[in-house]
Amino acid sequence: MMIVDDVENGSLGPYQDRPRTFPNMRSKPYTPLIFRILMGINVRILVILLLLGFGYVFYIGASTSPIIVFVFSVCIISFLLSIYLTKWVLSKDEGPPEMAQISEAIRDGAEGFFRTQYGTISKMAFLLALVILGIYLFRSTTPQQESSGIGRVTSAYITVAAFLLGALCSGVAGYVGMWVSVRANVRVSSAARRSAREALQVAVRAGGFSALVVVGMAVIGIAILYATFYVWLGVDSPGSMKVTDLPLLLVGYGFGASFVALFAQLGGGIYTKAADVGADLVGKVEQGIPEDDPRNPAVIADLVGDNVGDCAARGADLFESIAAEIISAMILGGTMAQRCKIEDPSGFILFPLVVHSFDLVISSIGILSIRSTRDSSVKAPIEDPMAILQKGYSVTIVLAVLTFGGSTRWLLYTEQAPSAWLNFALCGLVGIITAYVFVWITKYYTDYKHEPVRTLALSSSTGHGTNIIAGVSLGLESTALPVLVISVSIIAAFWLGHTSGLVDETGSPNGGLFGTAVATMGMLSTAAYILTMDMFGPIADNAGGIVEMSQQPESVREITDVLDAVGNTTKATTKGFAIGSAALASFLLFSAYMDEVASFANESFKQVDIAIPEVFVGGLLGSMLIFLFSAWACSAVGRTAQEVVKEVRRQFIERPGIMDYKEKPDYGRCVAIVASASLREMIKPGALAIISPIVVGFLFRVLGHYTGHPLLGAKVVAAMLMFATVSGILMALFLNTAGGAWDNAKKFIETGALGGKGSDSHKAAITGDTVGDPFKDTAGPSLHVLIKMLATITLVMAPVFL
Amino acid sequence: MMIVDDVENGSLGPYQDRPRTFPNMRSKPYTPLIFRILMGINVRILVILLLLGFGYVFYIGASTSPIIVFVFSVCIISFLLSIYLTKWVLSKDEGPPEMAQISEAIRDGAEGFFRTQYGTISKMAFLLALVILGIYLFRSTTPQQESSGIGRVTSAYITVAAFLLGALCSGVAGYVGMWVSVRANVRVSSAARRSAREALQVAVRAGGFSALVVVGMAVIGIAILYATFYVWLGVDSPGSMKVTDLPLLLVGYGFGASFVALFAQLGGGIYTKAADVGADLVGKVEQGIPEDDPRNPAVIADLVGDNVGDCAARGADLFESIAAEIISAMILGGTMAQRCKIEDPSGFILFPLVVHSFDLVISSIGILSIRSTRDSSVKAPIEDPMAILQKGYSVTIVLAVLTFGGSTRWLLYTEQAPSAWLNFALCGLVGIITAYVFVWITKYYTDYKHEPVRTLALSSSTGHGTNIIAGVSLGLESTALPVLVISVSIIAAFWLGHTSGLVDETGSPNGGLFGTAVATMGMLSTAAYILTMDMFGPIADNAGGIVEMSQQPESVREITDVLDAVGNTTKATTKGFAIGSAALASFLLFSAYMDEVASFANESFKQVDIAIPEVFVGGLLGSMLIFLFSAWACSAVGRTAQEVVKEVRRQFIERPGIMDYKEKPDYGRCVAIVASASLREMIKPGALAIISPIVVGFLFRVLGHYTGHPLLGAKVVAAMLMFATVSGILMALFLNTAGGAWDNAKKFIETGALGGKGSDSHKAAITGDTVGDPFKDTAGPSLHVLIKMLATITLVMAPVFL
Repeated sequence: MMIVDDVENGSLGPYQDRPRTFPNMRSKPYTPLIFRILMGINVRILVILLLLGFGYVFYIGASTSPIIVFVFSVCIISFLLSIYLTKWVLSKDEGPPEMAQISEAIRDGAEGFFRTQYGTISKMAFLLALVILGIYLFRSTTPQQESSGIGRVTSAYITVAAFLLGALCSGVAGYVGMWVSVRANVRVSSAARRSAREALQVAVRAGGFSALVVVGMAVIGIAILYATFYVWLGVDSPGSMKVTDLPLLLVGYGFGASFVALFAQLGGGIYTKAADVGADLVGKVEQGIPEDDPRNPAVIADLVGDNVGDCAARGADLFESIAAEIISAMILGGTMAQRCKIEDPSGFILFPLVVHSFDLVISSIGILSIRSTRDSSVKAPIEDPMAILQKGYSVTIVLAVLTFGGSTRWLLYTEQAPSAWLNFALCGLVGIITAYVFVWITKYYTDYKHEPVRTLALSSSTGHGTNIIAGVSLGLESTALPVLVISVSIIAAFWLGHTSGLVDETGSPNGGLFGTAVATMGMLSTAAYILTMDMFGPIADNAGGIVEMSQQPESVREITDVLDAVGNTTKATTKGFAIGSAALASFLLFSAYMDEVASFANESFKQVDIAIPEVFVGGLLGSMLIFLFSAWACSAVGRTAQEVVKEVRRQFIERPGIMDYKEKPDYGRCVAIVASASLREMIKPGALAIISPIVVGFLFRVLGHYTGHPLLGAKVVAAMLMFATVSGILMALFLNTAGGAWDNAKKFIETGALGGKGSDSHKAAITGDTVGDPFKDTAGPSLHVLIKMLATITLVMAPVFL
Repeated sequence: MMIVDDVENGSLGPYQDRPRTFPNMRSKPYTPLIFRILMGINVRILVILLLLGFGYVFYIGASTSPIIVFVFSVCIISFLLSIYLTKWVLSKDEGPPEMAQISEAIRDGAEGFFRTQYGTISKMAFLLALVILGIYLFRSTTPQQESSGIGRVTSAYITVAAFLLGALCSGVAGYVGMWVSVRANVRVSSAARRSAREALQVAVRAGGFSALVVVGMAVIGIAILYATFYVWLGVDSPGSMKVTDLPLLLVGYGFGASFVALFAQLGGGIYTKAADVGADLVGKVEQGIPEDDPRNPAVIADLVGDNVGDCAARGADLFESIAAEIISAMILGGTMAQRCKIEDPSGFILFPLVVHSFDLVISSIGILSIRSTRDSSVKAPIEDPMAILQKGYSVTIVLAVLTFGGSTRWLLYTEQAPSAWLNFALCGLVGIITAYVFVWITKYYTDYKHEPVRTLALSSSTGHGTNIIAGVSLGLESTALPVLVISVSIIAAFWLGHTSGLVDETGSPNGGLFGTAVATMGMLSTAAYILTMDMFGPIADNAGGIVEMSQQPESVREITDVLDAVGNTTKATTKGFAIGSAALASFLLFSAYMDEVASFANESFKQVDIAIPEVFVGGLLGSMLIFLFSAWACSAVGRTAQEVVKEVRRQFIERPGIMDYKEKPDYGRCVAIVASASLREMIKPGALAIISPIVVGFLFRVLGHYTGHPLLGAKVVAAMLMFATVSGILMALFLNTAGGAWDNAKKFIETGALGGKGSDSHKAAITGDTVGDPFKDTAGPSLHVLIKMLATITLVMAPVFL
């Protein structure tokens, strides 16, 4: 305890005087292959190539629809803006050499892990691509495809190409997220030495960069695919495919994106939390040294984890969410337009792309509205960064309401139902309000300003056991309000769409599902800003770590601590946002799946009847999948953390000088242990998620074949998907909220309540925090991805079940 | 620690020499009203009344069906046997006065709590009866009822009378369970001073007594109702009701039973675990005194808890399970017999009653097969009690297979489909095997002989946090195998029933659901023996407590410790059994609900389509209900335990002499605190479970009315029920297994592994055990009841949703 006090009082012990070098874990300077190829090309050729690319893009865009041209233009402008943001961030200084050294160690660890992880993932993706190719080559084509002249082989290559493009883009999204965060962290630390406002601005702009790239890439990728297929297949010309069927060809893209995101989130999530839990268990609990103390051998691994777990994985996750949601909304828009015989269906199909183009614009405005104080040379007093971020969010959300209304009038106006666009604008409003309420509920349950976390903190005073019981209860209870909100918004949006006046040939209303889709888009209409706030969290966290490790003065630490605390809140609230949109989107994907099956089987597939025993069993298996997946995700963290604990304990025993700053811990070994363990551990849950729906669908297809039930496989998979979605939403809410609440209950006690730091209550609260770590950062976010991956895998694998 | 060693070495400190009296918490000698009335009557009159009762019962039985006479006879014989068993148990001595004193304190606490608890429950039951009466008086009658001349008023009174009878019987079942356990515990302690075998026998026979009463009462209650309605309504005579519709009138009985069981389980579960957790947190963790040490002020409350939580609640729970399962199987049997135009449907309808009559017979044989060694005067070496119980179980299960086969041949043989009975016998076999496999899986995950618990114990060595993470993962993972088993048995039984050759008018097979029903009966065909083993647990636990508190020599404690350990295993395995049968039964109840709705609405109701948004929302709400209910059940225990902790801490501070045996703790205050808190806390989750399906059904009925969806309320409730069932099964499996595994991981460490008692691993394991307590003994078992209560409440409240 003496040592801790020393450190905290600023008398930094003998380690201060020793040369502080950090191990260089870089085997060779690493740049991904694609960048190396690009950099090898002469600049002029590159410019010509780029111009040619743009030319092609605009050519096919112009041949498709002016809307596509608009989408392309917005995306390219926002890429230019993101280049400006990254230049701005990189122009900031990296601070004193000790900071730069730490940052370099983190960067090397993160990039090394990223390389190995994505190597594994890409191998699996290629394998899966072969499987998909095989399946599509041996299945029968849909009647539409036959009539449009798309053969079996074409459709197979289309799907596989879309899958691989989706996987590639998802990987790039993850890489971009990590690339900027490992460079921004040290710049935030350095800026924190000057002013809080500047540090905040650097972190926000770095987050903004990757948010714009992630969202922009999802939009432009789908737009390019859409336009290419449109031109290539001669859509809407006589005898070929109808434009309303085109979105079904894009599902491979969504599946590719979610496939990569699942493994990115699992691997990254296991990495970050195993390192964190391992570091805390020995460092904080056993040795009593503070978080991110340089004496802890696992500290670099912990900091690397923030980048690979939170930044890279969340980038891939959000990319996948947006892609899946856009594609499912496009499918539903197309189906509805076809059923209602709308003359120009392109507005309904391309609506999601436009919404996200506006998302890019308004989020950019929101990001740029966060400015440094004019005079950054004098130290400004610390303002509440949350208030600044909230102000930016308010700007964004007001603009979102306006542009959303405008987009509905622009694209969803049809003479058949002149007031339909207004109903859909209201659906969008339902979505935006739902997002707001979700964020509020998450804050209520995880912020220590409110009662739940205070009660949880109080329960720590009677021991570890009551703390855990109270946290589990809190997490389970916190599922209730979000479910009620989601229920109300699904029904409200459906009803608004239903009464929009859009009717099919028989005169029955047909806009309900599209209404739900529009609400989902409304919810995601500020996605880029939300992602910015989310990315801000781990960058600030990392910056705090660098400040702590390089032993900066107290005043700098105060600034990064405040930013870190805000980052925790934004992280928690964006999780609420993510699961809310997943819940809405899953219902769309489910409907898209039923459309897809109906189209493949050339048979009406409108209902999934859970009173059939096999279908009920499918539901049972779907819910079970969620439980088993969560179990494996959590236990992976537990197992890996135990390895870290053993390694850290070993180092403390073998190098007794570490505690007195006389010996340097071997950071690299911890990094290596965590990296290899998390790569090993991500396979089992990931494979479970991918293989089980395929196996279940296939088995019941065979069973259905022998017992004379047509479509049994498809129905069982539908029930599996639906029950898994419901259980997944609840489980993710439980895990995220419980984890966040435990974290903040600990923070509340650290403010001095209930005995403060070092008291028995604090120890019990740390136990809760440790338990919450894998809940909120491994299993919970992986479930978000899992829910959507299940929906896209069933879409792509539908031929297997039929 | 000195004190602990003193106690453990048998030098019992100064407390030994002081007069050990325990507070008499008896305000007045308490006997329930019904017994007081009975005892007030002259014996001769009583005998005459009893004979008249028997006469009536046999008269209506004979007028109904010879099968009913058989059922009556078996039940009455087993009641006589149970009277013999209780006389045998009561004839055993109560041991030295200090034992009797402790036992008396426990008895007073338990009976006091029981009185208040059941007072509250009965008030609520009467209130609900009025509500049901109101609903039935204002609804429209079903076409069948109209054709059979049952008016609205008659049907209302029938339902309410069945409800009240079910509630009363459930209450009596609970009372009987507790009555015998508070008397048997001290006799087991006393017998343990002589021989392990005798102690085992006393505990088993006491458990057997209440098992026979519980199962017998469920069977005879339904049989009497059935026969009375049959005779009274003139069933099967021209112009009146058909016998195949008769079982639908019994649903009130099932609902009454589950209503009482829900509150009994909640109140008792909260009581027992709040006392246990509270006692452990201060006693074991803070003060380091052993479990059940007389110095712990909460020890009597803890021992009372075993009786009210485990014995009384489990009695009510099993009563409810059997009743609900019999009624749903009767409904399905009736429906099938009607659809297939079977000439004499009574065999199909009464089959479940016969199965449970045989259950009484074969379980009695199993119970009686456990005998004392011939020469009980010499101390026999301790045998493995588990092996003895297993031997009895093997006897029972072999007989079950035989009698089950016989019953199917007797009752399910029909000339229409001569081999159908064989298929159904195989369904029964599927059920029996499922039960066996379930028990095995539960053992695998909760017994420290197997890997999962050992891994869990190992994770304790790295701290509280990793122990909890590992336990949660283990619990979540343990849901997978049971779900697979249930899935296979549902499909296998359905398929066997489907191919039984029973076809309806149109020639399509119709026996599938009944096949599942038969499998459920197969699973429950040894229920009385299972319940005996289950009751054995808390009695042995209590006996151990009395031995510890009265500070008997080490050798006596060894015997009760062994019995206690076996009790833990049997408790855990019977939970697996209970949830397995609940899973199967729920599917039946669901089908029965759909039949009921179809019959009320006079409209086909064959499917619940989760692709409709409102229905999906119903499912979402159903799953959420499970999460919220579990949250409230766990937090109730946490809150009450905190009150206990504070009280115990206060006593240790205010009476410092307690630790040196110089002052006596105030046991009564702890008992009073726990009792009033648990009565308060049981209301919220209980009300949630009862009110939410009614509210949801009614709201969506209104919504459906305005949006032109017929049957929307009924469909939404069906989805709610189904999703709640699936989530409930998974959640209960998770909670039960995690709790059991934590308990046994602690026990494993206490055997000396990983540092043994007092080590850091042990402390972490105790935290896990504390967390597991409300999981496995409050929330988990309450969920079993909840699942079935939801099914019966929707059956009874169906008129509200239509």
